[in-house]
Amino acid sequence: MSEQYIGVFDSGIGGLTVFKSIMETMPSENLLYFGDTAHVPYGTKSEKQIRKFVLNDVAFLHRFPLKAIVIACNTADSVAGPLLRETYPDEPIYGVIEPAAAEAVRSTSNKKIGIMATKATVSSGAYDRAILKRDPQAQLISVPCPLLVPLVENGRCEKDDPVVRLVLSEYLEPLIRYGVDTIVLGCTHYPLLKEAIQSLVPEIRLISSSDAAAKVLKEGLASAGGHGIRRYFVSDDKQQFEDNASRFIQDLQGDIEQVSLE
Amino acid sequence: MSEQYIGVFDSGIGGLTVFKSIMETMPSENLLYFGDTAHVPYGTKSEKQIRKFVLNDVAFLHRFPLKAIVIACNTADSVAGPLLRETYPDEPIYGVIEPAAAEAVRSTSNKKIGIMATKATVSSGAYDRAILKRDPQAQLISVPCPLLVPLVENGRCEKDDPVVRLVLSEYLEPLIRYGVDTIVLGCTHYPLLKEAIQSLVPEIRLISSSDAAAKVLKEGLASAGGHGIRRYFVSDDKQQFEDNASRFIQDLQGDIEQVSLE
Repeated sequence: MSEQYIGVFDSGIGGLTVFKSIMETMPSENLLYFGDTAHVPYGTKSEKQIRKFVLNDVAFLHRFPLKAIVIACNTADSVAGPLLRETYPDEPIYGVIEPAAAEAVRSTSNKKIGIMATKATVSSGAYDRAILKRDPQAQLISVPCPLLVPLVENGRCEKDDPVVRLVLSEYLEPLIRYGVDTIVLGCTHYPLLKEAIQSLVPEIRLISSSDAAAKVLKEGLASAGGHGIRRYFVSDDKQQFEDNASRFIQDLQGDIEQVSLE
Repeated sequence: MSEQYIGVFDSGIGGLTVFKSIMETMPSENLLYFGDTAHVPYGTKSEKQIRKFVLNDVAFLHRFPLKAIVIACNTADSVAGPLLRETYPDEPIYGVIEPAAAEAVRSTSNKKIGIMATKATVSSGAYDRAILKRDPQAQLISVPCPLLVPLVENGRCEKDDPVVRLVLSEYLEPLIRYGVDTIVLGCTHYPLLKEAIQSLVPEIRLISSSDAAAKVLKEGLASAGGHGIRRYFVSDDKQQFEDNASRFIQDLQGDIEQVSLE
């Protein structure tokens, strides 16, 4: 039998936080990463366009023998996850929304949960549905945080960066006022801001959708194993990806190739 | 003879500042706008990818009879302008870089000029070449301002917005220290921040590449005239474009259509 891969995809580099969690928790698995860097970001595009991009991403992953597909992008999962699961009903497709929602419900004591995410993820209502089906008593407040992806993409993540602090304070303010004890970091870029966020709200528990996704994947895999192969594919310049990726994963441990999907 | 158009294109909505300047200075011309909103932003993509997008944009405009093409995006002009002019040597192709560079050279008294632009525009060195060929004694300082497009795209332009003030102060600091008396707003999004920038540096002259481009187009057109027709095309959702466009132009005076270039 040929080598099987876990295929992970995202609009760009944000999904590397999921990839990293998978590397750490399942070091022997063979992993593929596809970053659609020619079309990044997805979070500000229309739902129709996002669905089209996602179908192309998964069609690319299918060039390889796969044991699982991981949607490593909250926007893609919230907008196109249901379509993907309908399109490939027999494949194990893992997302980030359901694992993070489950973790948030387990974490909260006062049932007040905040969600920080892109505009598209917030508008989709995916987190509300996923949390409320687990706990109909949960009280939710969602804040679209459109400036966080640009900050992370530009390497602005430090807790002492005054711009980072000011922007985060603005987004956190309604969550604090609402009295949440748990916040879902509902975008795969946000774990890079976890330290900065935690320094502003030390008493609130932060749920990384990336870590939650890796945990659920590990529980769900029908068979474990592999040779720790890592391969990376991007739809735009690979040099730029390599430079930016180091913010997410210090050692990629694999080759990067540029591919054209059009 | 069929109606001829001035075809204006940009990666998204930023080029509407150029479109608006053209509407105001040449109200009777027939104008087409194409915004490649499925691929926005260009400023963070690779040069190869930007060139591919730009060739597609212009191929689309060529579905219509054109009297001029306007590259209403500094990134597209700096990275793909030369290629476009080689590809279509007999067509009148107008950009934003040369007009803004000429205006900056006319404006400065102390020959110290600052350039605020996207990373891609700064890296291309297009403004340096365009200014220094006009005045080899000019002293230039360029600052990549990657957070400004996300701010504008999210409607954060007010001079009293603390995030806007903080981010602008950071980008302006090296320009002030260098002693510039003129700053080129080298991205078509930035005119929406002009008031906010001017409030922080009231003594520095700001050059809008959008206004400069419209002025040069007016001087260069072989024949004036038309019926004031306006048509807008976008590659992603038209509703989103319409909502965002109102920040740039209060009354579009024309229909918006979504088109697929792929």
